[in-house]
Amino acid sequence: MSAPRVRDVPVGLHENGTRTERDSLGEIEVPAGHYWGAQTQRSLIHFDIGDDRMPKAVYHAYGYIKKAAAIVNARAGRLPSWQADLISRVADEVIRGDLDEEFPLYVWQTGSGTQSNMNVNEVISNRAIQLVGERLGSKDPIHPNDHVNMGQSSNDTFVTAMHIAAAEAIDDHVLPAAARLREAAETKSRQWEHVVKIGRTHLEDATPLTVGQEWSGYAAQLGDAIDHLERTRTGLYRLAVGGTAVGTGLNAPPEFGEQVAAKIAELTGRPFLSAPNKFAAQASCDDLVRVSAALRTLTVPLFKFANDLRWLGSGPRTGLRELILPANEPGSSIMPGKVNPTQAEALLMVAIQVAGNDTAVSMAGGEGNFELNAFRPVIIRNVLHSARILADMMDHFRTYLVEGVRLNTETLHHNIEHSIMMVTALSPVVGYDRAAHIAHYALDNGLPLKDAALQCGITADLYDKIVDPERLTRPGVPSPDGGTRH
Amino acid sequence: MSAPRVRDVPVGLHENGTRTERDSLGEIEVPAGHYWGAQTQRSLIHFDIGDDRMPKAVYHAYGYIKKAAAIVNARAGRLPSWQADLISRVADEVIRGDLDEEFPLYVWQTGSGTQSNMNVNEVISNRAIQLVGERLGSKDPIHPNDHVNMGQSSNDTFVTAMHIAAAEAIDDHVLPAAARLREAAETKSRQWEHVVKIGRTHLEDATPLTVGQEWSGYAAQLGDAIDHLERTRTGLYRLAVGGTAVGTGLNAPPEFGEQVAAKIAELTGRPFLSAPNKFAAQASCDDLVRVSAALRTLTVPLFKFANDLRWLGSGPRTGLRELILPANEPGSSIMPGKVNPTQAEALLMVAIQVAGNDTAVSMAGGEGNFELNAFRPVIIRNVLHSARILADMMDHFRTYLVEGVRLNTETLHHNIEHSIMMVTALSPVVGYDRAAHIAHYALDNGLPLKDAALQCGITADLYDKIVDPERLTRPGVPSPDGGTRH
Amino acid sequence: MSAPRVRDVPVGLHENGTRTERDSLGEIEVPAGHYWGAQTQRSLIHFDIGDDRMPKAVYHAYGYIKKAAAIVNARAGRLPSWQADLISRVADEVIRGDLDEEFPLYVWQTGSGTQSNMNVNEVISNRAIQLVGERLGSKDPIHPNDHVNMGQSSNDTFVTAMHIAAAEAIDDHVLPAAARLREAAETKSRQWEHVVKIGRTHLEDATPLTVGQEWSGYAAQLGDAIDHLERTRTGLYRLAVGGTAVGTGLNAPPEFGEQVAAKIAELTGRPFLSAPNKFAAQASCDDLVRVSAALRTLTVPLFKFANDLRWLGSGPRTGLRELILPANEPGSSIMPGKVNPTQAEALLMVAIQVAGNDTAVSMAGGEGNFELNAFRPVIIRNVLHSARILADMMDHFRTYLVEGVRLNTETLHHNIEHSIMMVTALSPVVGYDRAAHIAHYALDNGLPLKDAALQCGITADLYDKIVDPERLTRPGVPSPDGGTRH
Amino acid sequence: MSAPRVRDVPVGLHENGTRTERDSLGEIEVPAGHYWGAQTQRSLIHFDIGDDRMPKAVYHAYGYIKKAAAIVNARAGRLPSWQADLISRVADEVIRGDLDEEFPLYVWQTGSGTQSNMNVNEVISNRAIQLVGERLGSKDPIHPNDHVNMGQSSNDTFVTAMHIAAAEAIDDHVLPAAARLREAAETKSRQWEHVVKIGRTHLEDATPLTVGQEWSGYAAQLGDAIDHLERTRTGLYRLAVGGTAVGTGLNAPPEFGEQVAAKIAELTGRPFLSAPNKFAAQASCDDLVRVSAALRTLTVPLFKFANDLRWLGSGPRTGLRELILPANEPGSSIMPGKVNPTQAEALLMVAIQVAGNDTAVSMAGGEGNFELNAFRPVIIRNVLHSARILADMMDHFRTYLVEGVRLNTETLHHNIEHSIMMVTALSPVVGYDRAAHIAHYALDNGLPLKDAALQCGITADLYDKIVDPERLTRPGVPSPDGGTRH
Repeated sequence: MSAPRVRDVPVGLHENGTRTERDSLGEIEVPAGHYWGAQTQRSLIHFDIGDDRMPKAVYHAYGYIKKAAAIVNARAGRLPSWQADLISRVADEVIRGDLDEEFPLYVWQTGSGTQSNMNVNEVISNRAIQLVGERLGSKDPIHPNDHVNMGQSSNDTFVTAMHIAAAEAIDDHVLPAAARLREAAETKSRQWEHVVKIGRTHLEDATPLTVGQEWSGYAAQLGDAIDHLERTRTGLYRLAVGGTAVGTGLNAPPEFGEQVAAKIAELTGRPFLSAPNKFAAQASCDDLVRVSAALRTLTVPLFKFANDLRWLGSGPRTGLRELILPANEPGSSIMPGKVNPTQAEALLMVAIQVAGNDTAVSMAGGEGNFELNAFRPVIIRNVLHSARILADMMDHFRTYLVEGVRLNTETLHHNIEHSIMMVTALSPVVGYDRAAHIAHYALDNGLPLKDAALQCGITADLYDKIVDPERLTRPGVPSPDGGTRH
Repeated sequence: MSAPRVRDVPVGLHENGTRTERDSLGEIEVPAGHYWGAQTQRSLIHFDIGDDRMPKAVYHAYGYIKKAAAIVNARAGRLPSWQADLISRVADEVIRGDLDEEFPLYVWQTGSGTQSNMNVNEVISNRAIQLVGERLGSKDPIHPNDHVNMGQSSNDTFVTAMHIAAAEAIDDHVLPAAARLREAAETKSRQWEHVVKIGRTHLEDATPLTVGQEWSGYAAQLGDAIDHLERTRTGLYRLAVGGTAVGTGLNAPPEFGEQVAAKIAELTGRPFLSAPNKFAAQASCDDLVRVSAALRTLTVPLFKFANDLRWLGSGPRTGLRELILPANEPGSSIMPGKVNPTQAEALLMVAIQVAGNDTAVSMAGGEGNFELNAFRPVIIRNVLHSARILADMMDHFRTYLVEGVRLNTETLHHNIEHSIMMVTALSPVVGYDRAAHIAHYALDNGLPLKDAALQCGITADLYDKIVDPERLTRPGVPSPDGGTRH
Repeated sequence: MSAPRVRDVPVGLHENGTRTERDSLGEIEVPAGHYWGAQTQRSLIHFDIGDDRMPKAVYHAYGYIKKAAAIVNARAGRLPSWQADLISRVADEVIRGDLDEEFPLYVWQTGSGTQSNMNVNEVISNRAIQLVGERLGSKDPIHPNDHVNMGQSSNDTFVTAMHIAAAEAIDDHVLPAAARLREAAETKSRQWEHVVKIGRTHLEDATPLTVGQEWSGYAAQLGDAIDHLERTRTGLYRLAVGGTAVGTGLNAPPEFGEQVAAKIAELTGRPFLSAPNKFAAQASCDDLVRVSAALRTLTVPLFKFANDLRWLGSGPRTGLRELILPANEPGSSIMPGKVNPTQAEALLMVAIQVAGNDTAVSMAGGEGNFELNAFRPVIIRNVLHSARILADMMDHFRTYLVEGVRLNTETLHHNIEHSIMMVTALSPVVGYDRAAHIAHYALDNGLPLKDAALQCGITADLYDKIVDPERLTRPGVPSPDGGTRH
Repeated sequence: MSAPRVRDVPVGLHENGTRTERDSLGEIEVPAGHYWGAQTQRSLIHFDIGDDRMPKAVYHAYGYIKKAAAIVNARAGRLPSWQADLISRVADEVIRGDLDEEFPLYVWQTGSGTQSNMNVNEVISNRAIQLVGERLGSKDPIHPNDHVNMGQSSNDTFVTAMHIAAAEAIDDHVLPAAARLREAAETKSRQWEHVVKIGRTHLEDATPLTVGQEWSGYAAQLGDAIDHLERTRTGLYRLAVGGTAVGTGLNAPPEFGEQVAAKIAELTGRPFLSAPNKFAAQASCDDLVRVSAALRTLTVPLFKFANDLRWLGSGPRTGLRELILPANEPGSSIMPGKVNPTQAEALLMVAIQVAGNDTAVSMAGGEGNFELNAFRPVIIRNVLHSARILADMMDHFRTYLVEGVRLNTETLHHNIEHSIMMVTALSPVVGYDRAAHIAHYALDNGLPLKDAALQCGITADLYDKIVDPERLTRPGVPSPDGGTRH
């Protein structure tokens, strides 16, 4: 067939009723107002389970695959260039989201993602047919399997689309949001570098540190988690495409995987390449399992960060009251004037959700059999869900809590005045046992530490030289001469 | 104020632009086309995180609470009856879903659900104001806090709404779908009561049983899981309402909880009652944690059921091939003619998702502090999600797999002919050690069991009397006289 | 063979070197100082993985099974009574733990538990042989398979032993310890029935309640968890025994399961009975999965209880300081005089471990295939581990924390004096909006609530009539006349 | 005090009865036959919970810390060299395990690990006292706090010991065992490089591949998991030591952390260094959380590997029968001659246990507050448990299953003969639709693929040129001329 004329028809089918489509199981009616074909329709019938739809990001990723495959196939002379151009043109529409309404399938479908791949194939086929003015459903001149899917299987392309979609979510959303949050913590750390406060271990009063030091810990924890996620997500750049049905590459020419991956890299601007072992790449989702685990490990420092902030901000009168949290909204329908640490609560819930999602991903990851892991939809759903809510949440937590938080210096001061654990500084001078005696004496008699120390025989001079809260926030063994022994 | 005239205005605000609303933090613009007020708007700004919206079922449940509270308040003379009638009328619209578009809030919000409660209060207030022709946002004559929320807090009502929504999901969706699936398994069990097959333990050939016996196991497992879920969900009938802010019932009259719960029971036709200890009811979500765990334990037999079916249906040429699964759709984009156990795969994925969801619920359940568990939104989201996908999935699995599955009698027969493990029946007669020798002899020499037995000195007569596959599926010690010793 | 004379030889083999034992795979040397045989020895070689040994409780439970089976077999004339007596006698030694050293196998073994069953069979065989003065390893006159295992398979008996061991752990350890803890919380609740404190929601100050009310919540949460565990554990009373290899009961006489279960019930004093469907009972561990889930749901209220106590006890100078926790040990190696909430920390860790264990149990529970769940060892290990540490921990937490905790009445008082959230009581009188204004006014100006109220136009008389902390802990709408409106 | 004479007394106290020890809470009796002191004894009383003891590896790691600290303290002139030598000498005994019996504490203790640190301090103190002939319990001349713990806190050293112990477990056990298993899979892959088999996707027959290709996938999956674990475990090399109580380094000289870490690196031969942010290092266990997650992600490919082997080895007559698994032990107590995939089952259970353990680690990791994560014991217990059982299990799985597995070439051949999915190769030539028709025709009529193809109009010549199983295992589009189109 020679190249037909391509008309400039906008996306959209303005038909009512149904149209007959056909696949290897026979004919079936599909809505005339949609591009999808028989297999999409069958899936809609057999799998209308819950409200969870396959994320659009997976289809956008498929747009890149179909376009790249068409170009590579054309370059190798397997596909006439006008067919490749037509497929590419529609693939661009897919990538742009113009055809989002045409991808209605549910998450809970075949474990390989075949139905979503066929959905893409059918939509591209029919949209291309529309563009050249032929009959929808005829599969002519663009056949969903023979042309759009040329050199491909769902088994290699669906997991490829998963990688592309997940890489985009991590690279463009999670990592930048995490970096912004880390930077915000760092800023606070610098801002409060010299503000002394009482530390707490086991929730109990401990020796002093600066607020800046405490916040440097939040920043450092986040930094480590970011590094780990960055390293781990490089696995996503390895694409299964080229393995076709079982990893051997049957029906795809040699180097097809390498060429398609290179083209996808070019189209997306990300360093994608062909997975070195296609059997592993298709029989597992291990790279995604590791990324999901890394997302979960990112929630671990976030969990502590949010918890610390809501506890330090507790009050206004009977809590720890070290931080003053921004009042973004009224906190109670019954208690007037109440303000709550709602961003922290939301973050804690998101962290928990990500942990739950990861449980699912990990279980699903292990359940592959032979040449295929047939638990892919549940994996990509959860990875993308985790990435999405984590990225958004980190930005909100930063904007509406971290950046707006202020110190209650009065409380910080009061705590330093009253704490007893600075007795620790006396320990190298008078010994642990005597220092412990002083501490118990202070507690039992409700005394300030200094009073207790003096009553226990420490001289005021010695006490003042040793117990200097600010100096106690730096390494060093306080020495009786008022300096710090090194 | 005397009762204003209530006009019969259909739901809907046909305004463009914004309207000024106000709460204790000040004024804020809200879309003029919506009923919600200041607190909803603040939440939309501060919490547009991901795509997860608070499930509508929670708002429908709130409709019952607001209506019941209004009626009880009116009956006690705390609220003029015209105000109660107005609130009730709008609450009915909420229950029917007519106002669903007015509840846009995200799951990731304040941990108490206050913002969703205020969303309901604000919408009912403004819709009521519309009905009496007053100015939206004026809170007059129906104030969101003073009237719609009268005698209530988010702390008691949100968890009440969670219980109502979850009870409905379990009672009306999960339990019936599970019962239908159990019945379908039972039907197959009866249908195949006398078809003998080779059992498998450790995936390895074992002694025979009937297909019906095997399916009776599926039905029994499901039956037990259903019983457990039924018993466990009774905890959902206990409602926190009446505890108000911290469980004491401040600002609600004594017996308010009992009366509102009774009214909700009447309106919903479910046996709701007032939770016996409001402090526990508000500071925890333990009843929901238990229900979530019960949903997860329901997935455990489902996981095995789906796995067994897909393995027994594996083939068509090189698998176990005992079952012929319905061909609902083409299985592959590259391998023509392939049929896959897609319903089983979808069920396995749903089961895994429910396990992940339950992880989240359980973690969130433990994180309550003092008078409130502030992890409620993540809990109700996951419980309702699990209930929804499980119920739908069980129906699909039943319809598109279980009910259409057929036996491959040829394979069953062939397996019986060739299996060796019926040697077990010889064991009580000739001893375990000699029986083991026969089995190994058969395997090592590639012989049918009977040939091996004869070559090892068993008489054909004895063999035939003992090794009768059909009889081996019933209790009893096969005896040399051809009967069964008891 | 007629009944040999049974000698009164104490448990123990005082031989060095090895003894040759044999099974269907051939001969193997076993340590001469032990009773076990070839299959135990093979398992020791192939599975010396980690340090986790099959819990002794499983073997003790097996003692009951072997004894009960021998008695039932003898009664039916299948086994000479002297053989049954001999087996019973040794089974009693197993039950008493006298042979504990003879059960060395690892958890990580065959998924059916066959190796532990054979360990029991071999040990009973050889110990019986010793008692009648025959040659160890001869399997004569008591054969491990033909006699000790008569009418049994590992497939039915191992899960039976799991149920017996788990039922004992739940009944005798977990439930009583939980009940004692609940009672201790109840006692505190009564003791502090009238002590008023400021409630906290979202960690933030809320309206008052009594300490007794707060503790009544702990007790109620525990009571509900106990009820749920009690109901759930009844599933453990259903025993698989009688199903033999695949659930059909092959090689066991009809009613064998019922009779053995009844005998076990008699021997143990627990209401064991024969599982109604043996296919379900052997192909799944669903009853144990449910019990494990119930143990995890028990940790949920414990998690909150422990968390609340450690937070309320935080201090001594800069924390919440409402509770004074017992000082059981010095808290720090470097900070003299430090006291930490160590029992609470240990409980939180145990709760987390139980959650982790339950994850494993749940995953393993779903992985059964066909006629067997071959993940039993990991299930029973985790269930018994959870039961053990939970029971012990609840007793320690009660003894060393709950029973010794005291109130810091000074702090409680101070908090009542300074809190602002009692403004809530004004709300029904002056309206939510005006009450909110007063609260914000107090906060912004650092005023006590009363001062703020007065400056905002509330009369002192009205204020005093409404804002009575003690009355605010009871249901009711404070009314301007100093009473409580109903 | 001048240097006392050190006597060469072997480890051991041969006293009966008790000895009085004292700490800041007062006196307490300890067993005279043990070196431990008051705080260890208090912990034994308050925390005898379950059977879980703090792993000995943690104490051995502490030996390095105490030795390194003593050396660094002496070098800086803070500790007389004879004291440092004495501490070092006993620390060597700790490292060698000579004092293992002296570390009896339970896992479920204070969340900081203080009691285990004090256990070490007390034991070293008393053992040193014994060596110089002084009175046990006198703390003279080596004081547990002032000398053994000099410059240290439990807060920095316990997590340091956790890192050292975990690094050793990962480096010396898990990674080598994983590498050996990967290599064994690789060996099989090479051995079976050219053996063609039918692939399976969705458990259903698919296109062919070689057995070697399939096994290359196992090796590649393992290789990736190993790489990830290697990268992740580098976090363990960062040590908290030097941070003391809250991360500031109070009571330790500047550079103490760097110097002690360098000394530990020298003593252990591992690249330990001082953690860059002590606040993060002490307030979290994030590095261990990531390692635990990496261990879990290692189980994911193992889970598939073990599952594939047990399914491919299923039979001997009615299963997939592609592999012949080694018969390590009799498989059944009732079914003579049964052989089961027990190593695979054990591995699956270990994988599940590691997943459960990781759930606990992850939960515990998030629960840090302020300057300390007080959930350390549960974290190190689970990480070391996972490492231990994984390493052992991989070695056993390799030795007793992977290395002994053989191919059932007869089955492989038979499957190739009978499979239909090679129709896929026809698809590029005749189109997907016609190829699908041929496949369905073959199935519906029970025909070999070739017969079906011929009856559907394909010529025998074309068929033979296209459908060559061996060639179908390589990339390429089979072409009608018998070659492979590129």
